[in-house]
Amino acid sequence: MFSFSQNKLDRVVVNTNNFVTKNGKTIVFRGLNTSDPDKLESQGHWNKSYFKEIKEWGANIVRFPVHPSAWTKRGKENYLKLIDDGVQWATELGLYVIIDWHSIGNLETEMYQDDMYDTTLKQTYDFWRTIAVKYGKNTSVAFYELFNEPTTFNNTLGTASWDEWKKINEEIITIIRANGGEGIPLVAGFNWAYDLTPVIENPINAEGIAYVSHPYPEKREKPWESQWTADWGFVKEKYPLMLTEIGFCGPEDPGAHHPVISDESYGDAITNYCDDKEISYVVWVFDPQWAPRLFEDWNYTPSRHGKYFKKHLSSYSYD
Amino acid sequence: MFSFSQNKLDRVVVNTNNFVTKNGKTIVFRGLNTSDPDKLESQGHWNKSYFKEIKEWGANIVRFPVHPSAWTKRGKENYLKLIDDGVQWATELGLYVIIDWHSIGNLETEMYQDDMYDTTLKQTYDFWRTIAVKYGKNTSVAFYELFNEPTTFNNTLGTASWDEWKKINEEIITIIRANGGEGIPLVAGFNWAYDLTPVIENPINAEGIAYVSHPYPEKREKPWESQWTADWGFVKEKYPLMLTEIGFCGPEDPGAHHPVISDESYGDAITNYCDDKEISYVVWVFDPQWAPRLFEDWNYTPSRHGKYFKKHLSSYSYD
Amino acid sequence: MFSFSQNKLDRVVVNTNNFVTKNGKTIVFRGLNTSDPDKLESQGHWNKSYFKEIKEWGANIVRFPVHPSAWTKRGKENYLKLIDDGVQWATELGLYVIIDWHSIGNLETEMYQDDMYDTTLKQTYDFWRTIAVKYGKNTSVAFYELFNEPTTFNNTLGTASWDEWKKINEEIITIIRANGGEGIPLVAGFNWAYDLTPVIENPINAEGIAYVSHPYPEKREKPWESQWTADWGFVKEKYPLMLTEIGFCGPEDPGAHHPVISDESYGDAITNYCDDKEISYVVWVFDPQWAPRLFEDWNYTPSRHGKYFKKHLSSYSYD
Ligand SMILES: [Mg+2]
Ligand SMILES: [Mg+2]
Ligand SMILES: [Mg+2]
Ligand SMILES: [Mg+2]
Ligand SMILES: [Mg+2]
Repeated sequence: MFSFSQNKLDRVVVNTNNFVTKNGKTIVFRGLNTSDPDKLESQGHWNKSYFKEIKEWGANIVRFPVHPSAWTKRGKENYLKLIDDGVQWATELGLYVIIDWHSIGNLETEMYQDDMYDTTLKQTYDFWRTIAVKYGKNTSVAFYELFNEPTTFNNTLGTASWDEWKKINEEIITIIRANGGEGIPLVAGFNWAYDLTPVIENPINAEGIAYVSHPYPEKREKPWESQWTADWGFVKEKYPLMLTEIGFCGPEDPGAHHPVISDESYGDAITNYCDDKEISYVVWVFDPQWAPRLFEDWNYTPSRHGKYFKKHLSSYSYD
Repeated sequence: MFSFSQNKLDRVVVNTNNFVTKNGKTIVFRGLNTSDPDKLESQGHWNKSYFKEIKEWGANIVRFPVHPSAWTKRGKENYLKLIDDGVQWATELGLYVIIDWHSIGNLETEMYQDDMYDTTLKQTYDFWRTIAVKYGKNTSVAFYELFNEPTTFNNTLGTASWDEWKKINEEIITIIRANGGEGIPLVAGFNWAYDLTPVIENPINAEGIAYVSHPYPEKREKPWESQWTADWGFVKEKYPLMLTEIGFCGPEDPGAHHPVISDESYGDAITNYCDDKEISYVVWVFDPQWAPRLFEDWNYTPSRHGKYFKKHLSSYSYD
Repeated sequence: MFSFSQNKLDRVVVNTNNFVTKNGKTIVFRGLNTSDPDKLESQGHWNKSYFKEIKEWGANIVRFPVHPSAWTKRGKENYLKLIDDGVQWATELGLYVIIDWHSIGNLETEMYQDDMYDTTLKQTYDFWRTIAVKYGKNTSVAFYELFNEPTTFNNTLGTASWDEWKKINEEIITIIRANGGEGIPLVAGFNWAYDLTPVIENPINAEGIAYVSHPYPEKREKPWESQWTADWGFVKEKYPLMLTEIGFCGPEDPGAHHPVISDESYGDAITNYCDDKEISYVVWVFDPQWAPRLFEDWNYTPSRHGKYFKKHLSSYSYD
């Protein structure tokens, strides 16, 4: 399906509850999250080798988590150069790209889980205008993930209602499309992008979008499956769905933290669940210093987590 | 009507659909736009000679387009010194002044057509508080143009409704008047201050204001007149109206851009239309580097556009 | 009641219309306002001697007016060190503490009476999150005064409705409590924290809070009492009430300004009124340069105002 000789990937669009290319072929995405391009570039790892490794692990998509603090610090023009390079390398390797505005918190009150996620509604609108103008026609940049993890953090970040959050997402989608963004907006729900239950009654009022969940293992107790269906899996009956962050690590692994601690049984459960329902997913995170890390050193030695997903991603055959 | 010996011009007020002085005489304004005072001062041209030239061209009013970026960069105190000087020279020459908050875009989302127009609702409120406190009793500063050109730019700057925009204008008018601003607020509609149709059903809820349109030639196809009446001219039946930007240039002129390209037929049409209905207007722009330019060099050599309006402005007799 | 050997003061809570400690004893607070800790530290007076003097004057509570401009200038981390020290000294001396976000103006439009009060809704939320996280369990920090003096300044700062202001206060209270703030939120009304009349029909929707008024002498003409009852005193029938700023100075005293000019008859009236109804109060201000000053020099020589309140505060007996 992806060929090194292509300069251009086929545009992906929404067809009922699937992602399809213009020729009508359904694609299920399975890929990897980079760490922030700003972080990787600073450490000398934002290069084509890094993307080749991602490709070799079996990914067909890569997600760029753009932290608002990095965007602000580096400046719009300089940060876009990083994205330019990444999109170019991804395209050469046949990898689709998700650009992810990687904030965590409450856009309504403009309070965030940490200063690195700090942004404003104004900056968020401007980010998406900028991305739509720059990459709106670029078919590799298939997805715009509007806001990584919405959460009131149990109201420590103030309150937010689904109605308010829905309205903000709809405004961003309007801005993206008015500026020529032809990719697919990805919309997340509250509870750190876990909970999509409001979509039952009150879906986003826009065509051609997809929903996101981040079902890390400790969001629910085992057995997970029926809870996943009730919390977010039901969405796939009607809309395309992408789990833009999944992953696990053992309690002894570096950076282990709630809610990511589990073992290979989580890997089996989530991949079986996704494969069965043709739900796309992207594993967090292709960096040895962020957690759950997929590799341990810059020889790309897989971690426990990495061994699991390197094997699983390689098991898919794309015709 | 205007005498060099005056220290003070008569206060202009709204009387039904006209501008009148306190003694009841109606004034129709015809004048010129300066470029940004910050730009002129930086280039050594913000001086009384510049104002004398404006007077000699036949203007009875001058409009100062204060760009938010210039206001921010120079700082409030320093920028006010420029306005102080300009108001003083205008007063000495018998010219009324419009202070214009020269932004283009959507105050609701705080997105703008260019960084030079970047502002916030907070800064906009503060600007008008500052102007009202400083010039509220100054009778030369007859007009406060609240926001130069409101536009969603086809939703590329996000959405805005007339109800939201109306509410913002009403809040600014409240702020101006509470701070002692006795001049006349000028309110523009969407489509870069072209469209006043919502005023039919839903006028600004404030007495003593006037409306603005910027009917550049390419906003509509010829013949213009009936469209102008439907789009903004109808307002003059009920409220005072001022076209704070009109003008044209040929396609070969420097800086020629949509929607300003036309010829003298536009000049004839718009001046006849205005003269017939006693609509005030201000020609854009008295600067050799901005477009459509009225003069070509600092000897004030009129451009094609300048020749047209220098002649026309001089043709009016004010008793 | 307060012992120098205590490391910890009893938690104060709301019981119907009173402040009580956990063991059920009612406390009426009478204390002093510090000037801004940032100001005092810069001048070498933010030290335990200053707090000892406050204690010796008879206070059982001290209020820290944190100016947003000082918070921004010094930076969150450095400012918190000042509060840490102040809370420590207060605790050692058995003084309760009010942390007061000392802005004056309209949070809705983000316009303020002076640049030193400049803040945003975002910063205000973040301030209270920070304070709640840091001092939420500290029993000395008994009170959080959400916003010193709300006012539209006769609409010069734009409009605000009680419904909007109520909603902002409720959001801040939610944020404080979600972040573990166990102290008592203090809510003020418009007219520079004078007017609580909207509380009759439309009280803040939160349990365990108290209301604030700042009834400086010239807010009303003599005789004051029935007007005070109608304007804010009625609240004490149902809720706890604290006058976090009272005081007076003669017209000849340094810094004398409307509405603080009066004489000892005001002192008698306000203290009788409060003592009769068990209303708590805090006198403004324990600084020789701010007005009405309580002392004249750094030997703590009482001013006329200071003589009055030093004597009155010393007259209470706390068992
Ligand atoms: Mg904002
Ligand atoms: Mg909310
Ligand atoms: Mg809108
Ligand atoms: Mg704001
Ligand atoms: Mg309001």
